[in-house]
Amino acid sequence: MEELFRLTSLEEAKSKISSYWKTEPEKVRISVLDAFDKVLAEDIIAGADVPGFSRATVDGYAVRSSSTFGATEAMPAYLQVIGQIAMGKSAALAVGQGEGVGIPTGGMLPEQADAVVMVEYTEEMGQAEIAVTRPVSPGENVIKAGEDIRAGSLLFKQGHRLRPQDLGMLASQGILQVKVYSPFKVGIISTGNEIVAPEETPALGQVRDINSYTLYGKVQKSGALPTLYGIVPDDFQLLQETVQKALQENDLVLLSGGSSVGVRDYTVEVFKSLGEPGLLLHGIPVKPGKPTVVAAAGRKLLFGLPGHPVSAMVVYDILVHPLLYDGSYMNKMEVGLQARLARNLASAAGREDHIRVKLFTKDGELWAEPVLGKSGLIRTLVEAQGEIIIPVDREGLASGEIVNVKIF
Amino acid sequence: MEELFRLTSLEEAKSKISSYWKTEPEKVRISVLDAFDKVLAEDIIAGADVPGFSRATVDGYAVRSSSTFGATEAMPAYLQVIGQIAMGKSAALAVGQGEGVGIPTGGMLPEQADAVVMVEYTEEMGQAEIAVTRPVSPGENVIKAGEDIRAGSLLFKQGHRLRPQDLGMLASQGILQVKVYSPFKVGIISTGNEIVAPEETPALGQVRDINSYTLYGKVQKSGALPTLYGIVPDDFQLLQETVQKALQENDLVLLSGGSSVGVRDYTVEVFKSLGEPGLLLHGIPVKPGKPTVVAAAGRKLLFGLPGHPVSAMVVYDILVHPLLYDGSYMNKMEVGLQARLARNLASAAGREDHIRVKLFTKDGELWAEPVLGKSGLIRTLVEAQGEIIIPVDREGLASGEIVNVKIF
Repeated sequence: MEELFRLTSLEEAKSKISSYWKTEPEKVRISVLDAFDKVLAEDIIAGADVPGFSRATVDGYAVRSSSTFGATEAMPAYLQVIGQIAMGKSAALAVGQGEGVGIPTGGMLPEQADAVVMVEYTEEMGQAEIAVTRPVSPGENVIKAGEDIRAGSLLFKQGHRLRPQDLGMLASQGILQVKVYSPFKVGIISTGNEIVAPEETPALGQVRDINSYTLYGKVQKSGALPTLYGIVPDDFQLLQETVQKALQENDLVLLSGGSSVGVRDYTVEVFKSLGEPGLLLHGIPVKPGKPTVVAAAGRKLLFGLPGHPVSAMVVYDILVHPLLYDGSYMNKMEVGLQARLARNLASAAGREDHIRVKLFTKDGELWAEPVLGKSGLIRTLVEAQGEIIIPVDREGLASGEIVNVKIF
Repeated sequence: MEELFRLTSLEEAKSKISSYWKTEPEKVRISVLDAFDKVLAEDIIAGADVPGFSRATVDGYAVRSSSTFGATEAMPAYLQVIGQIAMGKSAALAVGQGEGVGIPTGGMLPEQADAVVMVEYTEEMGQAEIAVTRPVSPGENVIKAGEDIRAGSLLFKQGHRLRPQDLGMLASQGILQVKVYSPFKVGIISTGNEIVAPEETPALGQVRDINSYTLYGKVQKSGALPTLYGIVPDDFQLLQETVQKALQENDLVLLSGGSSVGVRDYTVEVFKSLGEPGLLLHGIPVKPGKPTVVAAAGRKLLFGLPGHPVSAMVVYDILVHPLLYDGSYMNKMEVGLQARLARNLASAAGREDHIRVKLFTKDGELWAEPVLGKSGLIRTLVEAQGEIIIPVDREGLASGEIVNVKIF
């Protein structure tokens, strides 16, 4: 019966979880100054051409390019200077054949000019004459009106996470308020009779709660809002009450602990008791992280992560972070670092192995050295700078092989 | 004279700037729950062994390993079960030769036990007897007292930026308050007669302020606190007053704009007028980004970034971000992505070229396609997903070459 929930692949697990992840967070209108790293809840359409007029990209003289054709140092083109463009002012005059107008970088191109000669390729010949020693082609040293942004074009799609340059783009359009999604809310619960709060001194047989704090940071890193619900002992009713409260107050709930068989059973029973659709899966083909339980209650998700700190973090990264950060498991680019593996690593086919690594350089090359140690050790997570994955279809990796390191 | 400030290499520029970057931000004591991504202002020493006692890492039976030596499925070792360890309780009993004690994952190892037999390799033979079908070696399935963390060991050095797992490590030690550095404060000023605030409708010849908003996001991404000081027209005294006010209220000031020769001269004059040590450099061998000016006033730094949005961002990434995020230019690992370059790119030796790229996949490989366009276009920054660098000693890169992409 339980075997029904033991999925054969991680892809299958993700697809099942996805189909129950329907929560859309609240939309709020905020200032662009508060919008860095927030996710747009609306499409943004350009309202105006940028720039609104053709501009010089260098200091020099606005000209008709044809006035400079064939100019060389030996045979310069001589132009009459008929005026000077002031920065930030409309260019009132027009440039005729054989004429030039002084213009600063960013200045507005006067009528009938189609290029700017850089000041470096001119020589003043008198009060109102210059010699041009190099020709310019049409459009040279000019940004045309609307060349940067066209009014009516789609600037950003709903769901886009705003980067610094995107704030600049919004400002260029006079958009100072945007509609964004509120961060997802995540409840965090630790379970286990042996776990005590960090402020307590553990008695023999007890350990302090590590996972609540690691997950608190993880959830922040995923751009969501964490709330701690404390430590629940192995008691069905207490656990059920705490999970129900956390589900009511959050979009997603993380429960960690329960690595022993008895507690795992409690967790599964509590997850089953929460109504439809209930338990989605029990066990994933990932090491460390196998004893993972996932359930859905209405539009909310509930993850039972393993109790070992390393396992909890690996499962969080695979199954929870993408939902909170990207909204889905849709293939986003994973930024990784290439390094050479410093020793052989064995794995079992049919299982994805996550290995923590330290990085070092030797002869100008980057090497990844596995940080070995039981998955119950928080130290291995702190010593490591990242992790590598042995894919499900490989039985190991060879020393010297190039691997992809995800920094954490 | 001005040529004195034109440095020949970026390394020289960094070393000069570094020698004037002496600001140490305020230290504040905060809750561990607020400490994610903050920088420690103190060393952290472990106060206690973790775990404080030897623990089982599986469900099973705590034994003397020697009681199981030679056990096989055909010839099991038979052990008397003399009790059960309760989770979170001190193990009061001792295990003799030929005896076992039931133990859950995370339970405390009883005296004289040195290993745990997994329940999967045992069979119940009656009320108080089990058959063990595989031997365990000393220490197997056990985390020893202090194996994770030793009391007295250095956990984190001052200057370490706290990751999620580091919060878990602190919690394991009962450390719920840490001393961290306050974020650096950064003032942002835009200059230029042609620049208007985003809420205004630009007249012909005017453009909205883009750089203040891009930099506002950039500074946040660097973990610092930005403040906008608005737009200053090309007026020596106004610029000097605004820069002085911003310097007084911040650790570092960013001024952008002044791409035309006249305004650049203003900026240099203002930078020179601020007292010792004054102007540090004028011009860097980076494209785009050459017309960069850097000055120091007392222990504070002042950067004059180019007016073009792309140039301003490139120079920010090279010279400003490391100071704010890492505190220095000391070689931190740059996380990059390997991709194949989709076209030839030319450069000039003696200059570091920064090229914006889009990424796409073809036949399972990642390719980087340069986003070409003038450095005045904000669109190129928004379309690009990252940048590549043509190093100072190369005259170009060939299509098909593997390049390192920094995602932004």
